[in-house]
Amino acid sequence: MTIETAIDALGDLLGQRLTTSGAILRQHGENEAYYPLTPPDAVVFPENTAEVAEVVKICAAHDCPVVAYGTGTSLEGHQLAVQGGISLDLSNMNMVLRVNTEDMDVVVQPGVTREQLNDDLRATGLFFPVDPGANASLGGMAATRASGTTAVRYGTMKENVMALEVVMADGRIIRTGSRARKSSAGYDLTKLMVGSEGTLGIITELTLKLQGQPEAVSAATCRFPSIKDAVNTVIATIQSGIPMARIELIDAMMVRGFNTADGTSLPEAPHLFIEFHGSPASVAEQSAQFGEIAADFGGNGFKWATKAEDRNALWKMRHNAYYAHKALAPELRALATDICVPISRLAEAIEFATTQSTALDLTVTIIGHVGDGNFHCALSFDPDDAAQFSRVQDFMHRLAQKAIALSGTVSGEHGIGVGKIKYMLEEHGEALDVMRQIKHALDPKNILNPGKILPPDTP
Amino acid sequence: MTIETAIDALGDLLGQRLTTSGAILRQHGENEAYYPLTPPDAVVFPENTAEVAEVVKICAAHDCPVVAYGTGTSLEGHQLAVQGGISLDLSNMNMVLRVNTEDMDVVVQPGVTREQLNDDLRATGLFFPVDPGANASLGGMAATRASGTTAVRYGTMKENVMALEVVMADGRIIRTGSRARKSSAGYDLTKLMVGSEGTLGIITELTLKLQGQPEAVSAATCRFPSIKDAVNTVIATIQSGIPMARIELIDAMMVRGFNTADGTSLPEAPHLFIEFHGSPASVAEQSAQFGEIAADFGGNGFKWATKAEDRNALWKMRHNAYYAHKALAPELRALATDICVPISRLAEAIEFATTQSTALDLTVTIIGHVGDGNFHCALSFDPDDAAQFSRVQDFMHRLAQKAIALSGTVSGEHGIGVGKIKYMLEEHGEALDVMRQIKHALDPKNILNPGKILPPDTP
Repeated sequence: MTIETAIDALGDLLGQRLTTSGAILRQHGENEAYYPLTPPDAVVFPENTAEVAEVVKICAAHDCPVVAYGTGTSLEGHQLAVQGGISLDLSNMNMVLRVNTEDMDVVVQPGVTREQLNDDLRATGLFFPVDPGANASLGGMAATRASGTTAVRYGTMKENVMALEVVMADGRIIRTGSRARKSSAGYDLTKLMVGSEGTLGIITELTLKLQGQPEAVSAATCRFPSIKDAVNTVIATIQSGIPMARIELIDAMMVRGFNTADGTSLPEAPHLFIEFHGSPASVAEQSAQFGEIAADFGGNGFKWATKAEDRNALWKMRHNAYYAHKALAPELRALATDICVPISRLAEAIEFATTQSTALDLTVTIIGHVGDGNFHCALSFDPDDAAQFSRVQDFMHRLAQKAIALSGTVSGEHGIGVGKIKYMLEEHGEALDVMRQIKHALDPKNILNPGKILPPDTP
Repeated sequence: MTIETAIDALGDLLGQRLTTSGAILRQHGENEAYYPLTPPDAVVFPENTAEVAEVVKICAAHDCPVVAYGTGTSLEGHQLAVQGGISLDLSNMNMVLRVNTEDMDVVVQPGVTREQLNDDLRATGLFFPVDPGANASLGGMAATRASGTTAVRYGTMKENVMALEVVMADGRIIRTGSRARKSSAGYDLTKLMVGSEGTLGIITELTLKLQGQPEAVSAATCRFPSIKDAVNTVIATIQSGIPMARIELIDAMMVRGFNTADGTSLPEAPHLFIEFHGSPASVAEQSAQFGEIAADFGGNGFKWATKAEDRNALWKMRHNAYYAHKALAPELRALATDICVPISRLAEAIEFATTQSTALDLTVTIIGHVGDGNFHCALSFDPDDAAQFSRVQDFMHRLAQKAIALSGTVSGEHGIGVGKIKYMLEEHGEALDVMRQIKHALDPKNILNPGKILPPDTP
């Protein structure tokens, strides 16, 4: 019972839809983060739930790791087969199965991407709001509990996944949740699966909440004398209860990245990018209220984008921030931190991140979904300079500790994957053992995405 | 190792705060539903988390069941020690520990009731929105995933519990979640505990989201020619996106119950009780939009309650609906169904419930949090008439099956407790075994509220 015998058995099942071609293995071993190339032993392309169940049964019988793969846009290496085994690529399961317009929900296969879904929904007047930037698969977004720019208004995947179909580690197919808006009938397995990063089961179908397209949408950029002024504007805005649809912080260096990558000519100062959704009257009211708060902190140079194409250009630029950061130092690798803290602690957390990262003397940018208290500090580094990388790791560790000390979390939205396992004990304490008990109970052979979320039992 | 030896050991630990007094045992064995008196063998009154942990350790060592007790207002017998053992009464742990006004959250002990919390918060301009009617304890509300009249706007306990402290079955104390608004760091143990009805752990501290008091609030009652017209008004209102704060259906017989119990003189016709929250302008806009929809379905006789005391009287009447139902037939027992379906299926579900329950020839009332697709059918019956009770049970079973057939759930908010265990397999299928695996992993001796949620392994 080995990976090799599993591949033989899977080949019998799937024929051409199992591959060991070097190019495809490499593609599934690449990542957007700073981890080395980690090709799996084989890639399979199932076409339906029954096939996924068969694949998992074979892997279980042969003690072979199986790692779900969506679009590969994870920033924490979730999709890497770090203990070898099978990459289970769900891109062929990409159908929108059923749009229930009256109930404002939709049933999709896991390989559907968020852009594909929203294209499909266009004629219905409904949209799926969760928007992590990358055109990720919805299965991957659920598995990593993704969020992004609109979570401040519409919540994360946690709030937007109503029901799932999941293949468990022994190949059983289960359904969790329902299309009812609420339920008190038993343990919330849906929420247990969301964010479990493919370690408890493989998501093969999702039922998602939808939102009505707002009647009016208005977006803007404005700049501030200092990052502190921008952050204080965010805190005051959230505390005043203005129902922001997006409120994003961009530091001066990130603006330089946008200007470099996108050919824009924004002033190189800290900015907020904002968006309002509602009726025309309420959008006007929200904009005016926000303008007053921003003015109190020196906000100026408002540029409004009310036409759809201008807003799309604005958010496309924001979504490409990670690539724009990389463009500032194309010869280096990049990584992004992801802490999230209570809003009252946000200024302290960003001040800490700025001071500590400046001392590294590297290219550093700060952006964030600051309405949720979540921000990213991206750093470029030379992977061949071990001393430098050690300093970067040390900074990341101090920032993680700071997040925990401020009643926050080491990951607001990127997940644990490979890179943040080392902070799990510090964040969760004894609760980590409860997570382990659940993992052992549901995947006793540890075949589902081993090496993710949970640190080894004996460190 | 028996219940008796556990009681001896607990007496050594707690002294006077363990009791076997008949009156107190009976009080903890009573219930708001139709279950027979089920006194525990002893009641303990711990005063802090460390004591709860010691109690659970002793119970674990002696294989003695331990059942958390809040205010005893469950409608499904959650608090009954159906296999004997200890009732763990958390009413002495009733402190509001910390209000974080800047972050709009609060940390409380589990024995704090929702009315106590909102009294405490009055000066802050904040409030805790989840409102199941009864003045339940917040620990109990979390354990049963409670919701109520405001869930349509503010969500259920699931959406409003941010973090927990929990004593596990072996006495370990864990912390789940954080005060950050979102996190992707590991399995969502908070959501696993919410709704687990004391079967996976004892909640000893909760961090809850708060809301800002709305600038303007307006409530109203209006009546309809038929229950179908009222339901169609609800469906159209929800689909139009009006952000209702409450939208409650009351059938004609329930109105008679209010008139009987509260001395009101409402016309005995189907009613909607509604409430709007927002700025004065938005409340006015919402009211006008709702009025137009209601008029389309024959809604008339609007009575507005804009003064706080009038609104309080209105919602107090609604909250006492279960007692008002009982007042219609004080010599009988009552029970309430609790199905929840997608809003597009609500008219069909209520039509089914009405037709089928009318055939029983009993006193039946229908009320519901219809904005969520959730409604209750309360029935009065004679507990000594076995044939009648069998017909009632048969009706409940058919209604539960209907809910599942309509993509809904057998419990919108009351939970499983004792009464709905028999529907768990039908609703969850194979997923029920996954719930069992989790229970076995976290409570291998089955000491935490045994006999709840999970049907016996071999039926």
